[in-house]
Amino acid sequence: MKKTTRLVLAAIAVALATPAMAQFQKPEDGVKYRQNALFVLGQHFGRLGAMANGKVPFDAKIAQDNAAVVASMSKLPWAGFAVNVDGVPTKAKPEIWTEKTKFDQGAEKMVAEVAKLDIAAKSGNLDALKKAFGDTAQTCKACHDSYRGK
Amino acid sequence: MKKTTRLVLAAIAVALATPAMAQFQKPEDGVKYRQNALFVLGQHFGRLGAMANGKVPFDAKIAQDNAAVVASMSKLPWAGFAVNVDGVPTKAKPEIWTEKTKFDQGAEKMVAEVAKLDIAAKSGNLDALKKAFGDTAQTCKACHDSYRGK
Repeated sequence: MKKTTRLVLAAIAVALATPAMAQFQKPEDGVKYRQNALFVLGQHFGRLGAMANGKVPFDAKIAQDNAAVVASMSKLPWAGFAVNVDGVPTKAKPEIWTEKTKFDQGAEKMVAEVAKLDIAAKSGNLDALKKAFGDTAQTCKACHDSYRGK
Repeated sequence: MKKTTRLVLAAIAVALATPAMAQFQKPEDGVKYRQNALFVLGQHFGRLGAMANGKVPFDAKIAQDNAAVVASMSKLPWAGFAVNVDGVPTKAKPEIWTEKTKFDQGAEKMVAEVAKLDIAAKSGNLDALKKAFGDTAQTCKACHDSYRGK
């Protein structure tokens, strides 16, 4: 494994593990937090997708701005999945908590791909953005398929 | 005017107003976006407040991490206020759009104070954090008092 990749993965592991960032006043705040963070993230990721898929013209600056937001937001939602909260509407399947290690690995993979997407967007190269967008979207889908209900 | 027509007109207004970061597929997404971004921001700001007000022990690293999230999140919600969207539950008062310049200046002031808060948190000095937290909280309150309903 490359040194850079190892450093990125180590940084992500620290970010995901840190209990410091996950102090919710009420358990339901954790659910709302993860839902809200993922919605905001999705809005910016969707704008990159529109460019990657040719639905809107490619604009390097807009891509870069949106990828930077996706990169910083990608680290947030996971703190809200620390515990399973009953009695709050959520699409989150209980398997998240019975397979927590696997779920966390999926989150780490997503954050790592988003970091590459950020680099690709900064390069200003549309082909690099398309590739990185596709790789990142795969990690979103993998988790949604396994852990998100209807 | 029909709700659909109003929503379509709002969508056009959004598209015209902010070409870069504010391309919401549906106008109601803009409302959800600003609410969600402010909730996430508030969670991290609240953790800084708990330390600034002595409710939890000061931890320089935790303060720094939370201030960094607040700083990056502080730039986001405003795109969701580009236009007034009818028919969507919101606490936003119509005065936001009749006094848009004043509202935008309030938002700019908040972003500027948050940038100072980020620097204060990085300094590791609790007194600096307390001062910057108070100054930032004033900008939140000013806007909430004028533009947020019950």
